[in-house]
Amino acid sequence: MQKPVRIAPSILSADFARLGEEVRAIDQAGADWIHVDVMDGHFVPNITIGPAVVKALRPHSAKPFDVHLMIEPADPFLQAFAEAGADCISVHPESGPHLHRTLQSIKALGKRAGVVLNPATPPSAIFHVMDLLDLVLVMSVNPGFGGQKFIEGQLDKIAELRMRIDASGRDIDLEVDGGIDRATAPRAIEAGADALVAGTASFTGGPGAYAANIAALRGEG
Amino acid sequence: MQKPVRIAPSILSADFARLGEEVRAIDQAGADWIHVDVMDGHFVPNITIGPAVVKALRPHSAKPFDVHLMIEPADPFLQAFAEAGADCISVHPESGPHLHRTLQSIKALGKRAGVVLNPATPPSAIFHVMDLLDLVLVMSVNPGFGGQKFIEGQLDKIAELRMRIDASGRDIDLEVDGGIDRATAPRAIEAGADALVAGTASFTGGPGAYAANIAALRGEG
Amino acid sequence: MQKPVRIAPSILSADFARLGEEVRAIDQAGADWIHVDVMDGHFVPNITIGPAVVKALRPHSAKPFDVHLMIEPADPFLQAFAEAGADCISVHPESGPHLHRTLQSIKALGKRAGVVLNPATPPSAIFHVMDLLDLVLVMSVNPGFGGQKFIEGQLDKIAELRMRIDASGRDIDLEVDGGIDRATAPRAIEAGADALVAGTASFTGGPGAYAANIAALRGEG
Amino acid sequence: MQKPVRIAPSILSADFARLGEEVRAIDQAGADWIHVDVMDGHFVPNITIGPAVVKALRPHSAKPFDVHLMIEPADPFLQAFAEAGADCISVHPESGPHLHRTLQSIKALGKRAGVVLNPATPPSAIFHVMDLLDLVLVMSVNPGFGGQKFIEGQLDKIAELRMRIDASGRDIDLEVDGGIDRATAPRAIEAGADALVAGTASFTGGPGAYAANIAALRGEG
Amino acid sequence: MQKPVRIAPSILSADFARLGEEVRAIDQAGADWIHVDVMDGHFVPNITIGPAVVKALRPHSAKPFDVHLMIEPADPFLQAFAEAGADCISVHPESGPHLHRTLQSIKALGKRAGVVLNPATPPSAIFHVMDLLDLVLVMSVNPGFGGQKFIEGQLDKIAELRMRIDASGRDIDLEVDGGIDRATAPRAIEAGADALVAGTASFTGGPGAYAANIAALRGEG
Amino acid sequence: MQKPVRIAPSILSADFARLGEEVRAIDQAGADWIHVDVMDGHFVPNITIGPAVVKALRPHSAKPFDVHLMIEPADPFLQAFAEAGADCISVHPESGPHLHRTLQSIKALGKRAGVVLNPATPPSAIFHVMDLLDLVLVMSVNPGFGGQKFIEGQLDKIAELRMRIDASGRDIDLEVDGGIDRATAPRAIEAGADALVAGTASFTGGPGAYAANIAALRGEG
Repeated sequence: MQKPVRIAPSILSADFARLGEEVRAIDQAGADWIHVDVMDGHFVPNITIGPAVVKALRPHSAKPFDVHLMIEPADPFLQAFAEAGADCISVHPESGPHLHRTLQSIKALGKRAGVVLNPATPPSAIFHVMDLLDLVLVMSVNPGFGGQKFIEGQLDKIAELRMRIDASGRDIDLEVDGGIDRATAPRAIEAGADALVAGTASFTGGPGAYAANIAALRGEG
Repeated sequence: MQKPVRIAPSILSADFARLGEEVRAIDQAGADWIHVDVMDGHFVPNITIGPAVVKALRPHSAKPFDVHLMIEPADPFLQAFAEAGADCISVHPESGPHLHRTLQSIKALGKRAGVVLNPATPPSAIFHVMDLLDLVLVMSVNPGFGGQKFIEGQLDKIAELRMRIDASGRDIDLEVDGGIDRATAPRAIEAGADALVAGTASFTGGPGAYAANIAALRGEG
Repeated sequence: MQKPVRIAPSILSADFARLGEEVRAIDQAGADWIHVDVMDGHFVPNITIGPAVVKALRPHSAKPFDVHLMIEPADPFLQAFAEAGADCISVHPESGPHLHRTLQSIKALGKRAGVVLNPATPPSAIFHVMDLLDLVLVMSVNPGFGGQKFIEGQLDKIAELRMRIDASGRDIDLEVDGGIDRATAPRAIEAGADALVAGTASFTGGPGAYAANIAALRGEG
Repeated sequence: MQKPVRIAPSILSADFARLGEEVRAIDQAGADWIHVDVMDGHFVPNITIGPAVVKALRPHSAKPFDVHLMIEPADPFLQAFAEAGADCISVHPESGPHLHRTLQSIKALGKRAGVVLNPATPPSAIFHVMDLLDLVLVMSVNPGFGGQKFIEGQLDKIAELRMRIDASGRDIDLEVDGGIDRATAPRAIEAGADALVAGTASFTGGPGAYAANIAALRGEG
Repeated sequence: MQKPVRIAPSILSADFARLGEEVRAIDQAGADWIHVDVMDGHFVPNITIGPAVVKALRPHSAKPFDVHLMIEPADPFLQAFAEAGADCISVHPESGPHLHRTLQSIKALGKRAGVVLNPATPPSAIFHVMDLLDLVLVMSVNPGFGGQKFIEGQLDKIAELRMRIDASGRDIDLEVDGGIDRATAPRAIEAGADALVAGTASFTGGPGAYAANIAALRGEG
Repeated sequence: MQKPVRIAPSILSADFARLGEEVRAIDQAGADWIHVDVMDGHFVPNITIGPAVVKALRPHSAKPFDVHLMIEPADPFLQAFAEAGADCISVHPESGPHLHRTLQSIKALGKRAGVVLNPATPPSAIFHVMDLLDLVLVMSVNPGFGGQKFIEGQLDKIAELRMRIDASGRDIDLEVDGGIDRATAPRAIEAGADALVAGTASFTGGPGAYAANIAALRGEG
């Protein structure tokens, strides 16, 4: 049940001084989702942006905002991100002991719910919450750290999740994030991904290049 | 030794979708410092922006960047903010047990060092680190929470710190943050403040109003 | 090796102003175990009762006290609950990194030891501690939050654990807690449960109704 | 401005199996306030009771419920205790970095607000929040630990706070908790206390003795 | 691909007053690795030794230093232990949410990387990091607590890991720690271990007995 | 009431490979106390040594062991250090909210009790626990970090504490730690110190120099 691949440019690689413009440009260049990486300096050793930035960007695109919370705990912030305009909110199982509850809360806010798997996290982390899931995000680098390359070993995990999702008969997106570029995108897709987060590969070369960047990630380049 | 008042507009009240433009506008409107409020969702119940945003804004103004860290611990992030372009880095005594060390680290990075006093925090929190201080920031609202009004009771603390700073003979700025507007600014200045953070009062009315906003905060309106 | 179902009324739904009386009434109404939900406001976002309450209730019933610790860490409190009169003490794997040790400590105190599985927690959490277990408790709602309904998806986990316990040949009780009432009780039992926690369904209608409530949960209604 | 002493029996020393009855008895015996000690096993190494117990006791007395929160953080639980029926909510400065905010929140809930000083905590902890205070509670033992005796050294702190409160002209109660009995009560009162928490000394000897116990604490015995 | 068994005496059982001498003696007695148990009083309830001790011992033996970090978080200390002279650094999956990253960091420091499995930890904790592993350490007692005996149930886990490692075709050592003596060593080896940590069994009887102790652990006694 | 200065060599600067020998040598060289710096990697960013090392060193000197706990929390480790042979145990006020209780516990173990003041910590931290104190330790560098020099500004704090101690009439030692050498020792003594911790300055030059090192610190050199 693998869908046509969706490209989710991460605004972490956009120019933070003119995010609205960047979001409009990447939207018009064909981005399917706008990916937002939220870091709190605790779950990961970096601080990025919070709900107020999401809210400010909301008027600049009608595309779904795909928000990845690299924070712990996540529960106290779900409502703020929902109200700021997130369409899908994804959390890590390691963010707290009540993953099922967190996903229930996201659904109760009327949003799509996702779980993110760190490179070391086994797929079994999601087996008992699949009835609440709209998205699984596989990290193909370690989140929160810069300058990393695609971890080959995660392809097996993507394939395993592909099978597991198909077997469930549920409509769950399988997204991959980390080191995605023209070379790795087809491999992730081949393994079963149907959504790809790309930062540098989306925003490189300035707005004039965004459409070509996205097309290339789709394998249309 | 109270200096002419410096106005430090907080970009927390600017449009996050076009921060570069906002910073240029407020700079040209007469801002003395660009104030940056960093929140990690742990020291305060909100997440705002991190070093990458500071770095992206750095080319847009030559004015000093006045960075207020509402995070705990602060130590792991000092270098990132220094490298991103902060000119003054201020921390809370409650962020960890080694305030003197934190201030030493900021100075070793070649930056101005500040301590921020929450409304309940007594002035004695800074008495043994004054030789490392370039700035004391008195919070006249509780940091990290929205929609608050100026706490009158902090005027006494400002006055006490004014005397303490003057008695020390050191060149330490005395800044006030929280609920500062045309009505409260003169009271803070009268109590001894020589720098004022203002968010809404700076950025209200759009770029065309920024110069008048700042002038009004200086009492020139 | 499924046993006749044991009913464990949770005193969380009793009248806290006259707990001794409530415990005596529910005991005489046929409760097999007295279930005690301990929450510390950290592992779950609620605070309930501690060892002193258990101790005060001990003289009011000779039935086993089945204590569920929703606290982290659990280790510093094991002895207090054992001395207060707990007969079985159950902990969450997420309460700390040394689950095996915690269970060893409970056994060393001469008490029965249990592990509680949150809705998202996979059964593999107990596979390497089964030689220390007297009870597995499957949460069919998320612990510590009110007003929830039975999570259907946990029936598969109950069934899987039933098989696993039977295969081990060990005498381990399989208890279910959350949203248990006349409608869900038979489904949990059918899936393999041999002990049921019930709060509202036990204590509804006042003492005169307790015997009928418990009988109904047993399927004798 | 020291008032006639108010006696606040702590239900920690009552029979937890029949708390409603105990509260009614101590109310009728002349208690001014019903004192509730809430411990979360984190701020102090003991767990006692939470909001549901307060709520269950509320119908049993019309006297003010004086709730002492030995928990950290306190903020997430203020609303629950207010809704459960607390009249005064007291917190420790060490519970978090935003004491002023916590007190604002308690006042915003329409309740009286207090600050509790541990034996080692200096009086300066309250100097900048006095405009929000209805009560200061001086601990004359270390909270959360049993079997302690009155710490003589706290008498000086009580006296210092008496002067400070009188000088402020504010209507702030000065309460003392820990090791209060017939011998220590007059000393605490002499030092400036106008409210006394007493556990064992209130509830000793059974309901028949409560009136005499309270009278003795007032020095009427 | 099970190798000849390597014996790794834990200096936790040596005389801390003359560690250099102890290390030289155990080296000459035939130890293959020098095992160092680092505890921080947080991951486990004991504090032992840190990097400075490792550095001081480094000149006393050319044998590999096998460092087991019972600390959380581990990341801030990896460089210090690498610089102090560790050859292999092993961490617990429970030490933080980024196990893959921690192992990458150890490898980037030019050291061998290991993962330690607590008695309750399932083998699946390492399945997605095997491409980074040089060693898996199975705890056959709970780490950080004294006076424990070999947990029989861990033999199955050792056997499962033996198969998993062999199937991977990778060169990963399988080490066992806890209650290893002449009686249990052959059982661990039979189950698949090819390295054994031994404290008391190595250092008992004084330096004159060390060679015989080690030979006995190898089954040569 | 300033006493003849006591010299407390810190074994942090001794050779960890032969600590017993080092302790014997420094004892014979005239050390008054053996100073032990315990760090847990949490209160300070370094891990040093724990109770087992103290125990191993105990037979090597009859001089008082002066143990400085740079750990949080301290309470769970007090008994272990007392049993290992500590004579005086000192803790930081920032280690937990119950300083008075911690000191009571140390006294109840039959040991001398101390409080350590970080460079930024005001003297008021000890004003309400003076009846429990045998020692105040003023840090003249930030604890847990290497290569620092004596902070001049702490001399005022030493002088203030000298007056406060004298005024109390109590027998409390006033110790200084950090950057103590031949140049700074007389200044600390002049300000009021009657005990000095010295690491490098004690152990430099090898055992043959220890007696001269200590004499020099006493001003006899």
